[in-house]
Amino acid sequence: MTEVSPVLDRLDADLDESLERLFALLRIQSISTDPAYAAECLKAADWLVADLRSIGFEASVRSTPGHPMVVAHHEGEGPHVLFYGHYDVQPVDPLDLWEDDPFAPSLKEVAPDRQIIVGRGSSDDKGQLMTFVEACRAYKSVHGKLPCKISILFEGEEESGSPSLKPFLKEHAEELKADFALVCDTAMWDRETPAICVGLRGLVGEEVTVRGADRDLHSGFFGGAAANPIRILARVLSDMHDDDGAVTIPGFYEGVEETPEDILKSWEALGQDARSMLAPIGLSELAGEKGRSALELVWARPTAEFNGIYGGYTGQGFKTVIAAQASAKVSFRLVHKQDPDKIRAAFRAFVRERIPADCTVEFTPHGGSPAIQLSYDSPLVTTAQAALTEEWNKPAVPIAMGGSIPIVGDFQNLLGMDSLLVGFGLSDDRIHSPNEKYELSSFHKGQRSWARILDALAKSTTAE
Amino acid sequence: MTEVSPVLDRLDADLDESLERLFALLRIQSISTDPAYAAECLKAADWLVADLRSIGFEASVRSTPGHPMVVAHHEGEGPHVLFYGHYDVQPVDPLDLWEDDPFAPSLKEVAPDRQIIVGRGSSDDKGQLMTFVEACRAYKSVHGKLPCKISILFEGEEESGSPSLKPFLKEHAEELKADFALVCDTAMWDRETPAICVGLRGLVGEEVTVRGADRDLHSGFFGGAAANPIRILARVLSDMHDDDGAVTIPGFYEGVEETPEDILKSWEALGQDARSMLAPIGLSELAGEKGRSALELVWARPTAEFNGIYGGYTGQGFKTVIAAQASAKVSFRLVHKQDPDKIRAAFRAFVRERIPADCTVEFTPHGGSPAIQLSYDSPLVTTAQAALTEEWNKPAVPIAMGGSIPIVGDFQNLLGMDSLLVGFGLSDDRIHSPNEKYELSSFHKGQRSWARILDALAKSTTAE
Repeated sequence: MTEVSPVLDRLDADLDESLERLFALLRIQSISTDPAYAAECLKAADWLVADLRSIGFEASVRSTPGHPMVVAHHEGEGPHVLFYGHYDVQPVDPLDLWEDDPFAPSLKEVAPDRQIIVGRGSSDDKGQLMTFVEACRAYKSVHGKLPCKISILFEGEEESGSPSLKPFLKEHAEELKADFALVCDTAMWDRETPAICVGLRGLVGEEVTVRGADRDLHSGFFGGAAANPIRILARVLSDMHDDDGAVTIPGFYEGVEETPEDILKSWEALGQDARSMLAPIGLSELAGEKGRSALELVWARPTAEFNGIYGGYTGQGFKTVIAAQASAKVSFRLVHKQDPDKIRAAFRAFVRERIPADCTVEFTPHGGSPAIQLSYDSPLVTTAQAALTEEWNKPAVPIAMGGSIPIVGDFQNLLGMDSLLVGFGLSDDRIHSPNEKYELSSFHKGQRSWARILDALAKSTTAE
Repeated sequence: MTEVSPVLDRLDADLDESLERLFALLRIQSISTDPAYAAECLKAADWLVADLRSIGFEASVRSTPGHPMVVAHHEGEGPHVLFYGHYDVQPVDPLDLWEDDPFAPSLKEVAPDRQIIVGRGSSDDKGQLMTFVEACRAYKSVHGKLPCKISILFEGEEESGSPSLKPFLKEHAEELKADFALVCDTAMWDRETPAICVGLRGLVGEEVTVRGADRDLHSGFFGGAAANPIRILARVLSDMHDDDGAVTIPGFYEGVEETPEDILKSWEALGQDARSMLAPIGLSELAGEKGRSALELVWARPTAEFNGIYGGYTGQGFKTVIAAQASAKVSFRLVHKQDPDKIRAAFRAFVRERIPADCTVEFTPHGGSPAIQLSYDSPLVTTAQAALTEEWNKPAVPIAMGGSIPIVGDFQNLLGMDSLLVGFGLSDDRIHSPNEKYELSSFHKGQRSWARILDALAKSTTAE
């Protein structure tokens, strides 16, 4: 068995060089959503292939109908892991809000003992993915081998909807399938507290349109007699929650599990409450199911949300019209074992029941994905948790996330792999915004964290 | 005493020329609710002044803080009447549902012996007001004088809440006060049956905006925890009606009278029921208070209607956003002695009660007017009834109207005048909707009707 401590020493010693490498990658303007930057995306992929080859990976650029993937493999004794990251970045506009050129990365001291790496992609996701690459480089250079069998997949379209990802995973399923995936695209709880994301809410989107009369009506002539689609839609939406904030659609909570008491307690210990969560956005009261904490509501409870509504006259002034139709965009965040298809069907039945006989309703589906939930006590989670706790000197929290990360669902559905989500971003990293940054401590201790995690995974019984 | 029959002959002979004049007025895009069309509103006022002067009226454009009024006077021997109409029109969106340019009026033959005038404002109210102007023109040209002393008031803000009307009436009360008003902004019972409107619902308009967080939120991060203004608004609107279609706002029915049995019976005799009222617009079920007839619902019962709603993401596709705010345009049709101010206050209290402590609500008033109710057997009504019956060869019906014409209340309250409401629109004129039209028979026999009414009023005892 190899030792991890000399690897950690090597990472400490090579920090400046690893920063130089990161800066070289950050200088490449790999904005995936804008076709004008296609050559830059290819350049980033080429750069990564060259860097991975320098470590000893068998690496190649793989073309897709969009921007290319980078795929790399390296033999190892431990379990086979697939590491995922993305080399593409968000556009940089509005450019005038950046303090520096977004593609001229630099290190800035913002407080004594606190430096940040500034530049587009520093946190999302180039800085994060390089923590893993640097851990591999140091391990290889110290021990001449890697602790696990490691495959790597770097995507170049994450910021533009990942159109090529699913077909690519399907086509290369055999090559990419590993024991589990490691994904570095998430955040820590705070600057000192590492986190593992074990739960991701799923999503069902629906657009619903209620139609009444075959034209817009004058409310003077028909008001009081003719169906008003806005009134019908408002009643439908209103009926979807009871007075305690629970969703009333029959069967909605099927598959929703209660979160274990000890996990709820660990979340409580994080000190986040309604006030601290909502004050920064100008609110103070929890709007979800009564009797649940703020974190439980966004991490472990399903929701019905109304994301948009429109009907009738919406311009300046007033128009006494009864609209012929009204529409709403409705989405459901799913948890645990809720079935997106069942939820969609139950929602539609719920709406149809409330449509008068002389009106009609139409539904347009907008995506559907189940929630992802790792067991809180799976060896994968507990092994990584121990490694992170050791590195950061603070217990690593198993958290959940309110949003969805489609790649995790794809790994599960297409490759049958669980994903371990460990990242070192912070909620104030300004990803997708001007002046994106990554903490130097995230970059440095992130490298050390991966070295420890790979080492621990190799030594654990999760190996087979 | 002058004779009316040569005036009627003149109207018949000049029909084509009167159509040309109407088309010229219809081409002016006098949409009052959209500030972008202010110059067009002024153009319509100027056009009317020029036309009235050509008849011999002393006419002028009178500026207001909003769109201008047109005021005109002409001497005459009979009673002094004030004729009212409005030259402004409703917006034309959705434009793609118009078969022709809304402001390129044309005459279309839709059946043998049936032609319609198509264009925005053809029925509401340019076509209607020109029936009166043409009657005056013919009378003057045949007899060299008018049968009554006639004042005219054309408003340019009727479709946008008439903000300048009350101050204008107050300021010019002495100039505008007449024995009674003639208003041409109502409909016939059907294409052959003339009607006099003795009841008009009042109107209270309100725009309500619910605000939650101080920015749009990602529903993944905050869904289930943060207030959703669309959800709050939907609940408020939904709560405004009970399951029997009655309005639940406390005190809402104060001042509402039951319609006399004999009037209800006379309405029943018109043969209008839910099916015949709603089938032409693709509906079949009465949506108002249960246990009331279709005509009673629109003529003698108050309503709460939702005329527009908007919030969150309303574009193509989907965005998992929790909007910072959501708005609705709400209006109340009032009857009998309901007090607009009390209704507005009760509505606002009703909404405020339902807004969570960390959210806010803002109200924008959009007009308010009480209902009007004339006695069924007043001499003004019976004289006009006889004249109309003669022109149309069918008894003129005293009806009520679901829409409101605030001017009638203002004439009553500010100038102490009753209003005679005679109009030649039809319920299928698509006013406020795409493809608005006016029957050529309405336009032609409307002119003849006014000639007869003016003549009868001059000869009747209502003169003093």
